[in-house]
Amino acid sequence: MYRLFRVGKMPTTRIEAFSDGVFAIIITLLVLEIHVPQVQGKDISGGLAHSLLAMAPKFLTYILSFVVVCIWWVAHHHLFGVLKRSDRGLLWLNNLFLLWLAFIPFPTALMGDFPGERIAVVGYGTVTTLAAVSFTFMRYYAFYLSKLVDERIDRRLLKSAMLKSVLNPVLHAIAVLLAFVDGRLAIALYIILPLMFFIPGKLERYVPSGETGSPS
Amino acid sequence: MYRLFRVGKMPTTRIEAFSDGVFAIIITLLVLEIHVPQVQGKDISGGLAHSLLAMAPKFLTYILSFVVVCIWWVAHHHLFGVLKRSDRGLLWLNNLFLLWLAFIPFPTALMGDFPGERIAVVGYGTVTTLAAVSFTFMRYYAFYLSKLVDERIDRRLLKSAMLKSVLNPVLHAIAVLLAFVDGRLAIALYIILPLMFFIPGKLERYVPSGETGSPS
Amino acid sequence: MYRLFRVGKMPTTRIEAFSDGVFAIIITLLVLEIHVPQVQGKDISGGLAHSLLAMAPKFLTYILSFVVVCIWWVAHHHLFGVLKRSDRGLLWLNNLFLLWLAFIPFPTALMGDFPGERIAVVGYGTVTTLAAVSFTFMRYYAFYLSKLVDERIDRRLLKSAMLKSVLNPVLHAIAVLLAFVDGRLAIALYIILPLMFFIPGKLERYVPSGETGSPS
Amino acid sequence: MYRLFRVGKMPTTRIEAFSDGVFAIIITLLVLEIHVPQVQGKDISGGLAHSLLAMAPKFLTYILSFVVVCIWWVAHHHLFGVLKRSDRGLLWLNNLFLLWLAFIPFPTALMGDFPGERIAVVGYGTVTTLAAVSFTFMRYYAFYLSKLVDERIDRRLLKSAMLKSVLNPVLHAIAVLLAFVDGRLAIALYIILPLMFFIPGKLERYVPSGETGSPS
Repeated sequence: MYRLFRVGKMPTTRIEAFSDGVFAIIITLLVLEIHVPQVQGKDISGGLAHSLLAMAPKFLTYILSFVVVCIWWVAHHHLFGVLKRSDRGLLWLNNLFLLWLAFIPFPTALMGDFPGERIAVVGYGTVTTLAAVSFTFMRYYAFYLSKLVDERIDRRLLKSAMLKSVLNPVLHAIAVLLAFVDGRLAIALYIILPLMFFIPGKLERYVPSGETGSPS
Repeated sequence: MYRLFRVGKMPTTRIEAFSDGVFAIIITLLVLEIHVPQVQGKDISGGLAHSLLAMAPKFLTYILSFVVVCIWWVAHHHLFGVLKRSDRGLLWLNNLFLLWLAFIPFPTALMGDFPGERIAVVGYGTVTTLAAVSFTFMRYYAFYLSKLVDERIDRRLLKSAMLKSVLNPVLHAIAVLLAFVDGRLAIALYIILPLMFFIPGKLERYVPSGETGSPS
Repeated sequence: MYRLFRVGKMPTTRIEAFSDGVFAIIITLLVLEIHVPQVQGKDISGGLAHSLLAMAPKFLTYILSFVVVCIWWVAHHHLFGVLKRSDRGLLWLNNLFLLWLAFIPFPTALMGDFPGERIAVVGYGTVTTLAAVSFTFMRYYAFYLSKLVDERIDRRLLKSAMLKSVLNPVLHAIAVLLAFVDGRLAIALYIILPLMFFIPGKLERYVPSGETGSPS
Repeated sequence: MYRLFRVGKMPTTRIEAFSDGVFAIIITLLVLEIHVPQVQGKDISGGLAHSLLAMAPKFLTYILSFVVVCIWWVAHHHLFGVLKRSDRGLLWLNNLFLLWLAFIPFPTALMGDFPGERIAVVGYGTVTTLAAVSFTFMRYYAFYLSKLVDERIDRRLLKSAMLKSVLNPVLHAIAVLLAFVDGRLAIALYIILPLMFFIPGKLERYVPSGETGSPS
């Protein structure tokens, strides 16, 4: 494993640029699924209002996906902000994470179209759980397996971030199991969980030495 | 609020790269909505000319959206040009701004297809107003709440840019209200407003020390 | 004009990143227009071969557009390589250039579908001429109006690049006029012209001091 | 040839940013081909499950394309990591490589839809072979023809990477020939070959001086 992955030290600039491109495309492509409605007949105004109202789930799905992807982007930004270099293993774990992330628009749209179908609710949760597992493992690899972190950072901060990161896939997996009991419960958890990770942890409040933490 | 947002000092490079990606995709995706017309029958030449003429609103919508998004890009470029760092709050305010910005192609296309419908004209104005509100608040946060600005910049320049920035959402909101009186008046204002922000303010004419203002 | 454009000195990094995003999206979106053919009936193999053969103009259009956009990208890369900074005027001239460039896939597809129609051939030429005019004017602005060029570069190299750059829109405009005489002649010129600009000029062979020109 | 290509020394930053954009768009666009199924009738649950199952080849195609493009991205990252500058020839060889790479989604989707058709299997292999030929020639150009490599790197490492790189198009071409014997054999090889290049070579395990190879 060592010879396969923990090799080829390189700066993190290009892995960040590539990921930023993928993140930017995902959030923007979501709008492509929203088409101007075709309205015909005598009552154009009424027909248009009715069509737009019927598109409400699509708008909500757009906002939900956008927020979820942005939360991942902020987490990715924070993670790479404490790394001092990357290696081949990090490239591939990042690729694996992006594989699930780039796939998210599909199960999100599926759940938006079939909110009452168990297969759609389970599908969405499975993909987000896999994204969360990949991200958590990427963090574990960077923090402990390949030691890519800036040494000046307090180890307790790393541990606290790691523990919070492990919670993410675990809670998503529980939401998937809940979907077999009650789909609405699972969907509610899908919406609450990102909010939980919206709140910054201790490491994300970390300020590099030389900067003042309190901007007076 | 302090612990949630004004934390995690970091350089502005990645937030700029991510935003540039989103901006670049939005202006390019607009062309995707323009399809080569299907022409059949005996008079291909006449049918093609007729189809292209009928597509004129689509071409105008493309140019309008392109110009509007570019004006936002230039403003974003200027804003981040005076910042010396970013933080978690700036990331999220930027994400909120991008949420509305990335959505703009939809109401623009809607208004292009239904220029006479109030719901379309009001919809376009509402989304651009929300984008303007987000951008203005991001500027306020960066200038005053989280003090992310390069200290060498004259405070009067910041204040002048802030005041101009507040005008933007206010005037857009007025245009939305006008749409309830006369849709054409609102559309006219939608076209005039970006031109107003095309003209650079004092801060945008700011030259960092070490550079000469007059190039010659 | 001075107060509107030759203001706001800034590095060229972000204008390059934004343009690279647009270039990258344009060349990649071209493939989106190529769809897997729907084949039904008994003779799948024959039907598929026939469908793919019928798609030949689409493949050629893809390659032509790709090469044309890449030639622009290389020219853009070379132009910005000799600039030491950007300003507001350059941002807007670059935006104007990108407006035409991002539009190119549409007239290219139109010409691919209707190679015998004058309106399609004239349309393609008009858009490429406008892109060439914008690019040439952007060069003129950067070289002479706003003096954004690295001073160490020989003025004769700039003049030679400027003259070659002026030829580009002129020859494209001639090709458009030729389309009114014979469409095939115009198309031939559309294919030959990019090849002419594929050959590097003196400025593009320029090597910054400190680097050796001959890589021995 | 010298005057055409081995001119215009420049940093590799912009060629990397442009390529990253293309890579990011390709892997993300692949999802666009996966649409939420339209399900009607009484048994929505059964119909949805059935539709999703029927989409299995599309999901597999997505994962295969994603992995193949990521392997190219990692190889590209490693190649440019050892270069100290770029030139006009490298720009154009990179463009040629990107031309084939950006085209890969089409033959991949074609093979996903028609796995039993020789023309689809041969088509996929031909495009990947052309991508491999371009990439190998780009490496040869950078290593030997234009000498763009950081001089501190051991020439034996370059030679070893070069030899492995030559294997890639050769093996892909053999897979294409196999497609004329048995399509399934060719497809199997298409899946095995990327895995072979997933394993890093000696050069990719290279650690720049100043960095320690063993992190711990």
